[in-house]
Amino acid sequence: MASEPKMIIIDTDPGIDDAMAIFLALRSPEVEVIGLTTIYGNVYTTLATRNALHLLEVAGRTDIPVAEGSHVTLTKGTKLRIADFVHGADGLGNQNFPPPKGKQIEESAVDFLIRQAKNNPGKVTVVALGPLTNIALAIQQDPDFSKNIGQIVLLGGAFAVNGNVNPASEANIFGDPDAADVVFTSGADIVAIGINVTHQVVLTASDREKLANSKGKFAQYLTKILGVYFSYHLEAYDNTGVYLHDPTTILAAVDPSLLTYIEGSVRVQTSGITRGLTILYNKQKRFGEVTEWSDKPSVKVAVTVDAPAVVKLVMDRLMDS
Amino acid sequence: MASEPKMIIIDTDPGIDDAMAIFLALRSPEVEVIGLTTIYGNVYTTLATRNALHLLEVAGRTDIPVAEGSHVTLTKGTKLRIADFVHGADGLGNQNFPPPKGKQIEESAVDFLIRQAKNNPGKVTVVALGPLTNIALAIQQDPDFSKNIGQIVLLGGAFAVNGNVNPASEANIFGDPDAADVVFTSGADIVAIGINVTHQVVLTASDREKLANSKGKFAQYLTKILGVYFSYHLEAYDNTGVYLHDPTTILAAVDPSLLTYIEGSVRVQTSGITRGLTILYNKQKRFGEVTEWSDKPSVKVAVTVDAPAVVKLVMDRLMDS
Repeated sequence: MASEPKMIIIDTDPGIDDAMAIFLALRSPEVEVIGLTTIYGNVYTTLATRNALHLLEVAGRTDIPVAEGSHVTLTKGTKLRIADFVHGADGLGNQNFPPPKGKQIEESAVDFLIRQAKNNPGKVTVVALGPLTNIALAIQQDPDFSKNIGQIVLLGGAFAVNGNVNPASEANIFGDPDAADVVFTSGADIVAIGINVTHQVVLTASDREKLANSKGKFAQYLTKILGVYFSYHLEAYDNTGVYLHDPTTILAAVDPSLLTYIEGSVRVQTSGITRGLTILYNKQKRFGEVTEWSDKPSVKVAVTVDAPAVVKLVMDRLMDS
Repeated sequence: MASEPKMIIIDTDPGIDDAMAIFLALRSPEVEVIGLTTIYGNVYTTLATRNALHLLEVAGRTDIPVAEGSHVTLTKGTKLRIADFVHGADGLGNQNFPPPKGKQIEESAVDFLIRQAKNNPGKVTVVALGPLTNIALAIQQDPDFSKNIGQIVLLGGAFAVNGNVNPASEANIFGDPDAADVVFTSGADIVAIGINVTHQVVLTASDREKLANSKGKFAQYLTKILGVYFSYHLEAYDNTGVYLHDPTTILAAVDPSLLTYIEGSVRVQTSGITRGLTILYNKQKRFGEVTEWSDKPSVKVAVTVDAPAVVKLVMDRLMDS
């Protein structure tokens, strides 16, 4: 028998590529999705919860619990930046889907994360697809969370490249820089997938056409919602394809060997014009002075990706159902 | 006849590699050094002035004026960071050279820069090898300076790589981030040579041996002072060679074709843990929102260098005298 599937919780702000990522996870036998936790980002948290429930109903997987996450950043006062111009006002391509029948569980996202990590020490992977507020709160509220959680695979950062909110900052880290700095310095086993990598993974117009021609239910659903996402990429990047940020991050949890990584400590700038910037210290220089990176735990940061293999896996699994 | 040599002013904090750079400029027929201006960085400004005068005496070029620059950062209150651990307490390899016989001119570095640019509009290149305080003051004090100055070729920044003061920041920008931001956004014709490029240009132990065996007066002098610089590189970088930061920057003024460049706007983070960080906006994305980089003038940032050609030119010119 193959090894047991890896238990994953997807922390998500659906979001068009979140929808792809969730479906992809559900179609990946290597992982078992034990819950979705919601967060603001592509949409406000309330809508993220609604969309998470909706997507599980589309998938016929209402057995999976949805726990609602934070509505505000870690330091609260910060105004949220919602990327409705990327995903549509409803987060799902302006399709006016009916409201979901189900409801989130009573337990909050943070309590759900803490409990699942405690009950399955070292066995649960959190795949974080939005700002890191829920994860930072779990770290702050339970001193054992960083040890109990198996791994945190997060979509976040722009390592040695321009950001996508502004030249310095990537959207998920920009969404809550203080939370991100808490997570990166927590000592948990962390894998960061930044846009330096996900911008290499492009679903082309021709891939989209293949999805449209597929009879699979996920492919059919995604075909409906992808329009807004393609329009945004054409406008912002002159790109006729779209970046597969969230699906790539899911696949980093499914099969880490699709990417390569370097290790080092990561800090986040939390103020000023580069607020949300991630800086990885690669340890190539020994600094004589103490720096803000000194004695901080190492994390893994993705540096290369087998993009054709990722796109193929995304296509195969989303069309085959 | 070849074209007239390019007039350059070297703004410098000597500094072991500053000494190499100054000698190299004096041995380069493509440029005419019309003055040295001094700044803190590798040493305090007073010592920088003393060393500048000393180096011109060693070279037999006391005809070149030295103008003393600022002793403090643009915003004043900031404590100076002096890199005596890289260059020795005297900035020149702890060799206890006798004091220079000459003296700096009465005119300040800032007034000298402004006057030379005004008298030779579009014709003077400033090669800035230290923190950018003098240049920023010239920009602030003379609204025409950015237009009058031909070009500013500066050693500064760590573009898409770790810094050398800490993982975020390179020493010259860290020395006065506010000044650097003034310079980068001034609209002057600017070429930035960062450590992403200069770390590719290494003078090896074997090159050092060749210098030692040369009878040239500059080679003999440099052989004396290089010990401290080599020791620092071994300790900090496990590198048996040394980086040619300042000489590479001089050669970027002498022959720009030794490097390649990209264009974009550069901003400097002036506070927080990434204080001194340089972020180049490469314009690959059109941001929907206004950013701190929007509508800022473009500068050129070096991205590749023909390192063997640079090292060969440095060696040939420093040994041949």
